[in-house]
Amino acid sequence: MNKLSNNPPKGTRDWEPEEFFVRKYIFDTWRKVCTQFGYEEYLTPIVERAEIYKAKSGEDVGGKELMFFEDKAGRELAIRPEMTPSVTRMVSGIYGKTAKPIRLFSIANFFRNEKPQRGRNREFWQLNYDLFGDESINADIEILQIALEIMLAFNPPKKSFTLYLNNRILIDGILEEIASVSDESRVEVVRILDKWEKYEFEAIENRLEALGLEKRQIENLQKFIQSDSAGELESNFPEIVENEGFKQIKETMQKLDELGYSDWVVFKPNVIRGFDYYDGMVFEVFDNNPENKRAMFGGGRYNGLAELFGSQSFPAVGSAPGDETLRIFLEDWNLIPELDKKTCFIPLLEAEFYLKVQELASSLRQKGDNVVIGLEPQSLGKALDFANKQGYSKVLILGENEIAKGIYTEKDMKTGEQREIQF
Amino acid sequence: MNKLSNNPPKGTRDWEPEEFFVRKYIFDTWRKVCTQFGYEEYLTPIVERAEIYKAKSGEDVGGKELMFFEDKAGRELAIRPEMTPSVTRMVSGIYGKTAKPIRLFSIANFFRNEKPQRGRNREFWQLNYDLFGDESINADIEILQIALEIMLAFNPPKKSFTLYLNNRILIDGILEEIASVSDESRVEVVRILDKWEKYEFEAIENRLEALGLEKRQIENLQKFIQSDSAGELESNFPEIVENEGFKQIKETMQKLDELGYSDWVVFKPNVIRGFDYYDGMVFEVFDNNPENKRAMFGGGRYNGLAELFGSQSFPAVGSAPGDETLRIFLEDWNLIPELDKKTCFIPLLEAEFYLKVQELASSLRQKGDNVVIGLEPQSLGKALDFANKQGYSKVLILGENEIAKGIYTEKDMKTGEQREIQF
Repeated sequence: MNKLSNNPPKGTRDWEPEEFFVRKYIFDTWRKVCTQFGYEEYLTPIVERAEIYKAKSGEDVGGKELMFFEDKAGRELAIRPEMTPSVTRMVSGIYGKTAKPIRLFSIANFFRNEKPQRGRNREFWQLNYDLFGDESINADIEILQIALEIMLAFNPPKKSFTLYLNNRILIDGILEEIASVSDESRVEVVRILDKWEKYEFEAIENRLEALGLEKRQIENLQKFIQSDSAGELESNFPEIVENEGFKQIKETMQKLDELGYSDWVVFKPNVIRGFDYYDGMVFEVFDNNPENKRAMFGGGRYNGLAELFGSQSFPAVGSAPGDETLRIFLEDWNLIPELDKKTCFIPLLEAEFYLKVQELASSLRQKGDNVVIGLEPQSLGKALDFANKQGYSKVLILGENEIAKGIYTEKDMKTGEQREIQF
Repeated sequence: MNKLSNNPPKGTRDWEPEEFFVRKYIFDTWRKVCTQFGYEEYLTPIVERAEIYKAKSGEDVGGKELMFFEDKAGRELAIRPEMTPSVTRMVSGIYGKTAKPIRLFSIANFFRNEKPQRGRNREFWQLNYDLFGDESINADIEILQIALEIMLAFNPPKKSFTLYLNNRILIDGILEEIASVSDESRVEVVRILDKWEKYEFEAIENRLEALGLEKRQIENLQKFIQSDSAGELESNFPEIVENEGFKQIKETMQKLDELGYSDWVVFKPNVIRGFDYYDGMVFEVFDNNPENKRAMFGGGRYNGLAELFGSQSFPAVGSAPGDETLRIFLEDWNLIPELDKKTCFIPLLEAEFYLKVQELASSLRQKGDNVVIGLEPQSLGKALDFANKQGYSKVLILGENEIAKGIYTEKDMKTGEQREIQF
């Protein structure tokens, strides 16, 4: 017989218990922060009709990275590559009958058929939290605040991360009023802005010239990208004060400052977010580790997406932290807590003690303890060795003497201390 | 623009927050019981190489119910239709270096391209808990005990469910020694035993005759199926006392009795479990609701499956409760607890109270409360209406008077009672 490989498929991984512990720490923290902000958990199916990704997306998720297949009736389905189209679909079905705003979150897995690299697996997990039915700046701020509180819940050191804020309405204004980019070139120019820092300026310049932009337009774009603060942008382009996106940025920055987040938040004019559906505030949270600078996650406002489903359009703003970049952040900044199993082990020292062992285990489980029992008779030495290898915290010894005295002996596996307890 | 449907794909469903609450109650209960028995959580990818399902499976999951697709390099993948091959694959990679026995559980989603029906969706969730590296009866009993404790954790009424126990070694013995079924017919006869109660006896008889069985063989099979207890089976077929499977059943039944589970456990000779990989103890947990009698979930021993991966074979026994049949059980027996959101709402009664509202929200969240804040100014009447529709438990009123006095007014939305609290 040919043996099969015991590796998981490329771009995916098994989470054995030690790894699961780290992921669960991340998921539990996400769930705790979202729940404390009154967000309610939901879940959608792992598959969607493929059409919903083809309609309005970006970053290639509507195309070659999608995993398509057909169900029994020949309907084209895809494993979800992101949550936003799914949650928009779901909310469009309940929007009319639900009090607004609607606050939702989910923790779910996704799949993209792309080249795996550090921080990017084919299968990945994301928190998605979204607020529907409110267009105010305060709604934007709540989404930003939750992003910040999620990061702060992991007790990161000062300057370890930065939230970069921008606004698509500002980008639109720059392209239209200041760089005078034509409608046809706009999508392509936005993509170039998005990748501005990844290339030499000369390469950027060539690509913009190829799109028909003149020297002055390109200079304006460069001056825009290099504006390090709202103040600098305003002094470079005084007319920007009339732009709605710029006004939103200023108010948002001020309120986040008043809420005490100023150490963590910076305006950054070339934060775009890849997805085409963003149409207002956008942001990215960066890992500032000098050896591993990278965007960890982001979010923004996507009021227009709901048009795809049903007749109603509605305001939407949200964010989606992913497990893998956050895991790297926690590891690099040494923020992963120590695994403590808090499990007791009661060995089966003689076969005939089985019911006694079960009785003790049952009474401790009723008190909330985690208890493993020995299934086959073994010596105390072997039992201690097993408990040690498994990382159990205590061994409860139930031998002939203990049973005669109506007690058990509790041995702490860390300190080695023993004490007798009535049973 | 053509509007897209806002329904999820056929055979799947959205879990909006009220439904998610029920599923989470099920998942949390699973996790709690498994953790208290010292099982450790893991997770494998949503996709696997298709070959692992084609090797040794059953119940069609290796065939037409699988969703296949290809990754970038043309590898054939499938969405997992069950966990057992995945966890066996994963454990085969760590078995040699881990202290035995290994206790594992996971809560994960699966997909089968089959006809949806009540209790059976295309996408479904399962708990899988398994014990690797121990062949003893006590290991079988632990798996059965967890199945029983999971059911009992939902506080079911007496006689609402039954765990039916059987053993594949007994089935093999019956077919070989008592019904003398030839090797070629055996797989088919096992399938017929599995479905025995779903058809008229005449139909069963015809199918068995077509396989070449004689009247006496068929009578013996019928007598076997109709044996209601180990005692009756023994008096029908005295030679069965030598069968290893029968011995295991007797010992297991006796120990479960001593552990106090006798009300819930019955021996049933035609419990087979569809999967071909079971090779020892098998069981099924039945919902006894007279209007909805059905197998909810099952499990058993599958020592042989590990041979597929790597050189080592190892003992394995486990079970996989599913979300959908359990949800129906809870609903039909009225066991779903009332949803209590325990969320406070602090309305924004004037735009300029925003920072005060945030300050109160923040201090309450630090104490562990769930707090929703108002994003746009609204009247107290509208705020109470919103909180009522959302099912929030309390409204915390922060008006001009309250702010002047350094307090807030807490209104309980159930009782209507109000009290002033220092802030």
